[in-house]
Amino acid sequence: MTAPFSTLEEFRAVLAALPTADTAAKDAAEARNGQLTKPPGALGRLEDLAIWYAAWRGDEKPQLAAPQVLVFAGNHGVCAQGVSAFPPEVTVQMVANFERGGAAINQLAKAFGAKMDVHALELDNPTNDFTQGPAMSEAEVVAALAAGWEAVDPEADLVVTGEMGIGNTTSAAAIAAAILGGDPADWTGRGTGVDDAGLARKTQAVADGLARNPEARADPLQALRCLGGREIAAMAGAMAAAHQHRIPVIIDGFICTAAALVLAKTADGALDHAVAGHKSAEGAHMRLLDGIGKQPLVDLGLRLGEGSGAALAIGVLKGAIACHSGMATFAEAGVSDG
Amino acid sequence: MTAPFSTLEEFRAVLAALPTADTAAKDAAEARNGQLTKPPGALGRLEDLAIWYAAWRGDEKPQLAAPQVLVFAGNHGVCAQGVSAFPPEVTVQMVANFERGGAAINQLAKAFGAKMDVHALELDNPTNDFTQGPAMSEAEVVAALAAGWEAVDPEADLVVTGEMGIGNTTSAAAIAAAILGGDPADWTGRGTGVDDAGLARKTQAVADGLARNPEARADPLQALRCLGGREIAAMAGAMAAAHQHRIPVIIDGFICTAAALVLAKTADGALDHAVAGHKSAEGAHMRLLDGIGKQPLVDLGLRLGEGSGAALAIGVLKGAIACHSGMATFAEAGVSDG
Repeated sequence: MTAPFSTLEEFRAVLAALPTADTAAKDAAEARNGQLTKPPGALGRLEDLAIWYAAWRGDEKPQLAAPQVLVFAGNHGVCAQGVSAFPPEVTVQMVANFERGGAAINQLAKAFGAKMDVHALELDNPTNDFTQGPAMSEAEVVAALAAGWEAVDPEADLVVTGEMGIGNTTSAAAIAAAILGGDPADWTGRGTGVDDAGLARKTQAVADGLARNPEARADPLQALRCLGGREIAAMAGAMAAAHQHRIPVIIDGFICTAAALVLAKTADGALDHAVAGHKSAEGAHMRLLDGIGKQPLVDLGLRLGEGSGAALAIGVLKGAIACHSGMATFAEAGVSDG
Repeated sequence: MTAPFSTLEEFRAVLAALPTADTAAKDAAEARNGQLTKPPGALGRLEDLAIWYAAWRGDEKPQLAAPQVLVFAGNHGVCAQGVSAFPPEVTVQMVANFERGGAAINQLAKAFGAKMDVHALELDNPTNDFTQGPAMSEAEVVAALAAGWEAVDPEADLVVTGEMGIGNTTSAAAIAAAILGGDPADWTGRGTGVDDAGLARKTQAVADGLARNPEARADPLQALRCLGGREIAAMAGAMAAAHQHRIPVIIDGFICTAAALVLAKTADGALDHAVAGHKSAEGAHMRLLDGIGKQPLVDLGLRLGEGSGAALAIGVLKGAIACHSGMATFAEAGVSDG
């Protein structure tokens, strides 16, 4: 579906006008939940998840049948600062691996019945090195947001956004620091496995990027443009499109959460259709999740990206919805309700 | 498969002679894990899970294709002490609900491709009230252990044991207190939702049970006989049988973990084939997990029993195995390995 914006200001206006959940479906789902054959609250967060999902799908007894995993890839000029344990050519190599079905996200998408689409975004045209100036022009960031928006299948009933881009934990850390403040070192971590010297270079790159791009601190969308990457912008665009279509989203790890943060801090409620899939082992992820006010569903030490942690959480959501929509009520089952 | 024991001492001997995992398969799986297209360790606990599973299945690249969920039900004489928010007849009502497919565990088993078998164990013949004497005779506890043992399908490649039994958090608390020590109040909680007065009655019942059954403190198998229930013994028997067949097990919540504790404290390594599926909202569950030395896979506030938390964790294990066995290696994918 064609993106309904061609400037950052138009994108901002789209975010301000996103729809809300269906309160009638939410009320009906809550009432149903109270009648199911279990002690009240005994399914814990599964109950909240199912009600949230029902509200966004506008269906008291929803099914989860058509999840879509979207993986966006981009290259980063900031790699010139020596911020990653892997060389930039790994981005295109991993895209080929995604396309052949060999990566972790392929296996997880298949395991949980999701279709997976891969979008490589101008891999031979990295963003500018943000320590030297803005990573992207307005036209570039808008094109990436639109690529993400248009990648969402309106018929999907769940969207997971993932990414691949050597150098992108540095970009995500810079976005987080610009929007949420704090020291650069609060936001940088080992990523795919940099050593102490590499970590020091990452932290310096974030500091330099903030100093070189003062407009990034004034506006989350400018943070995305000046410090982001195409795959990060595409994830933001896809999450916004999903919201427009009332398709629930599971947010992935550190980089995806930085993209989500841009939306959350641009328009109130922009992430109401989203849950946090997991807590990444990347050290600053919990702080970033706090920044968007979300508690992760699982915490298993993943730090791979690709959408892998969110894809794993599809299983949790599937279980929640299966219980909610499939269980008998006390009356149907002839069970005494205490 | 017929249980290879007809006394508690024979069961103890079986536990002492359980097989170990396949170290060659473990080594091969570890080597494979190091070659997969991801940074080292980036899949966190999923990597450990897949290697553990490979070791028990004796297969470097295992599949998880035939999980079995076993739900055992029993009734408890200790209900006479007013320890539950629900009346004992709910046990048989919920068994009917399981058999008709209406309970949470039915939906979760179906969602994760598991077959589910329900075993109602003499529901019209509750165990004795353990505040008055031993819950079971030796013949009774051995029969329940054997029922659990014989319920395991040797062709299954994963076993989840769950339970239903009004009053059984009290029984599980008493077993935990007998084996691990501490005050009765350390081990009792709200269960399905008792009020303060009910919680006080539970705690008193545990204290009375310990006082009335001194042999329970001397031997975990006597704790199971004197303080347990048929469904708890059956879970212990099923977990032991799974170990005998080298079928990995996911342990469920508070009551299932009490059954697992009996095995762990009777024979070293008896739970090496098992992981903890989840952390229950029942307050003492984490302490009980510490008692068996296991970290839960998910923590979502469930406190339903039935095997529900463990069944939810099947999804996590499926994801782990899918990644391990399906991903390309660096060499296969032509990806630079840093």
